[in-house]
Amino acid sequence: MAVRKVYGSLNSPATLKVLACLFEHDLDFEFVPVNLDAGEQKKKAFLSMNPFGEVPVYEDSDLKQFESRAIIRCMAHENGKKGEELIYWNAREQAIVANWVDVEDHRFEPPAMKLIFELVIKPNSGLAPDQGEVAEAEAKLGNILDVYETQLAKFKYLASDKYTIVDVLHLPNLQSLMGTPAKKLIESRPRVRAWCAEILARPAWAKVLEMKHKAQA
Amino acid sequence: MAVRKVYGSLNSPATLKVLACLFEHDLDFEFVPVNLDAGEQKKKAFLSMNPFGEVPVYEDSDLKQFESRAIIRCMAHENGKKGEELIYWNAREQAIVANWVDVEDHRFEPPAMKLIFELVIKPNSGLAPDQGEVAEAEAKLGNILDVYETQLAKFKYLASDKYTIVDVLHLPNLQSLMGTPAKKLIESRPRVRAWCAEILARPAWAKVLEMKHKAQA
Repeated sequence: MAVRKVYGSLNSPATLKVLACLFEHDLDFEFVPVNLDAGEQKKKAFLSMNPFGEVPVYEDSDLKQFESRAIIRCMAHENGKKGEELIYWNAREQAIVANWVDVEDHRFEPPAMKLIFELVIKPNSGLAPDQGEVAEAEAKLGNILDVYETQLAKFKYLASDKYTIVDVLHLPNLQSLMGTPAKKLIESRPRVRAWCAEILARPAWAKVLEMKHKAQA
Repeated sequence: MAVRKVYGSLNSPATLKVLACLFEHDLDFEFVPVNLDAGEQKKKAFLSMNPFGEVPVYEDSDLKQFESRAIIRCMAHENGKKGEELIYWNAREQAIVANWVDVEDHRFEPPAMKLIFELVIKPNSGLAPDQGEVAEAEAKLGNILDVYETQLAKFKYLASDKYTIVDVLHLPNLQSLMGTPAKKLIESRPRVRAWCAEILARPAWAKVLEMKHKAQA
């Protein structure tokens, strides 16, 4: 029986990040779907796990966490096998990973999610994208990806020459963006394009997509 | 000669967080003021340290970081003395600290900064606060502080019974809020009020305020 449980939604990028990290570490877990449309995340049972009422929640024996990046940091530190770990054991090297975790959090994700909202979520609900909002978010994301293009000239992956949790954190939003016209922002930058193609091809990410496709079938 | 350098502004909450952490660890450092009004943070010399053009930047020998929470995490792990550290060495205990670092980042800071913008920065520039924005941010921050009130019934500090980097991260915004009418949100919640009073009284924080007052004198 899996001791690890993920309470989440396959429509939630934060949930998918945690799942990708579990598959990277070959960990057994149970996925407990939370029905966001029905507002399950705002009901008492869920609020006892996350008082802020958002997915995912991660349980591993007596450990309970609800912030996806914190879940992933801890999982990577606890389960990284020598030579395959997604973090560094050395504090100085890990400091750079920590810096770029916050870059994804504060700089990449906000305009990426804005674009996904305008170009995926609104059309799926029969609403037209606001082209002004799209243009503004594209400009912002373009500036961030210019920095990424420079960074990827120095390192193979975003924080270092090793695949780390920083790259994992980008997967769900990159995947969604690649299904929209905003993919031009990625495809027009050769190093970003190559990095994106490589990380989206990780076997652990394929397992997340397979879970998603099965649930939709 | 100090090997550690903080390039920042005493008007920047992120800079003040890093300074508080340096004083908590009794570390020597040089503070290099960056003139934000003159746009120094967007000039080439600064962009070579932080391509996103924001303060602070932290240098410690060959280590360079620009995300304040990443700077603080690394500093606390590298310099914590047994019994006085602001983090946990145990991965499971640190996982909870990491979770609440992200709570400050994602939940507390956005409405707190919105209120500081409306109630401190706008009036300082001769502009009236937008009362609709104030009411909305107060409602959001109030909900977060309700969760804090419950959390502080379980633990002495926000993440555990020990003062950690989670508490440090709250200092600048709490200090600013206490100088505005929004202090009612803190004062009306007895545990939040006691926690706020205790952490704002830390000697390390007094040193940050002294730096600020000297610079203004």
